[in-house]
Amino acid sequence: MNKEISEETLFEGPRFNVVRKKYMSEKDGKEYIRDCVNPGDAVVILTVENDEIIFIKQLREVVGTVELEFPAGMIDPGEEPIDAARRELEEETGLIAGKLEKLIDYYPSCGYSSEKIYIYLATDLKKGHVHLDDTEEIIDICRVPIDEAVKMVMGGKYRHASVSIAILMYYYKYKNGGING
Amino acid sequence: MNKEISEETLFEGPRFNVVRKKYMSEKDGKEYIRDCVNPGDAVVILTVENDEIIFIKQLREVVGTVELEFPAGMIDPGEEPIDAARRELEEETGLIAGKLEKLIDYYPSCGYSSEKIYIYLATDLKKGHVHLDDTEEIIDICRVPIDEAVKMVMGGKYRHASVSIAILMYYYKYKNGGING
Repeated sequence: MNKEISEETLFEGPRFNVVRKKYMSEKDGKEYIRDCVNPGDAVVILTVENDEIIFIKQLREVVGTVELEFPAGMIDPGEEPIDAARRELEEETGLIAGKLEKLIDYYPSCGYSSEKIYIYLATDLKKGHVHLDDTEEIIDICRVPIDEAVKMVMGGKYRHASVSIAILMYYYKYKNGGING
Repeated sequence: MNKEISEETLFEGPRFNVVRKKYMSEKDGKEYIRDCVNPGDAVVILTVENDEIIFIKQLREVVGTVELEFPAGMIDPGEEPIDAARRELEEETGLIAGKLEKLIDYYPSCGYSSEKIYIYLATDLKKGHVHLDDTEEIIDICRVPIDEAVKMVMGGKYRHASVSIAILMYYYKYKNGGING
């Protein structure tokens, strides 16, 4: 691993900060920089009831579209990822998960962002209460049968990385003979 | 869609810039901001030869680890994604793809980043020439049988979103029944 020799915060905003780190190459001693976005970590919840997957339609200003995606949100400081998943699911859909299982955690963009995303599978659902943040705008909630959702992934219809990963992992784990690592 | 009312660049670096946009809610007229990272778009290449997938080990300073991932890189201004995939594959592995097929394009982090990633499947390979950028540090190239790679995805062993999506899509399309959307 190349050695980190300095670190400087170049931007601070409400959603993320940007830190510039300087490194020295182990190989030839050359110095170089890497700018890194630190937005914190997030949870995404694949919610399944009666062989249907629950989606939300959400306005995504930064890409200029309304995206079909899963309930999701930031992990609060000190909060366990599984607790964030339980909280976000109820806040956004009004559903309480009786069972939460981690499917995967991954880096969405590890070339420039430290963000880590945890995907949970939520089942055994009960009714709770919706309570959205002021800044959240959920346009609609809808349900899609699992087989149809898999075809949508394969046809490139979902544009959110977490949706594609979650649906295919669920399919292979629970619908297709049970491939496990 | 809520109306964009102003835009300001708050940070400019070699890898990305940060733009703050102000919007007005259609619903209640309230103003709010969204900070957006603009790192450009990227290609990721799933390379398959003799039922084996080609991986590279790359140092990822921003998450502090060496990651097992696919050949990948930025799309140059004016470059078509498929041409970027062909170029990056040869630069990083020395392989020329006789056939390139788009598997999917997606947003890795559309809450704060405009980045779009295009995943291509490269097959029908010939030998070309490796030529890495100064800033790239590829530690090793290795090959993993497809069935083993799928088990690795399902066991949460890959931490790069693009790797998990690409392997599961390839497996579904070419190894497990061939259902398409």
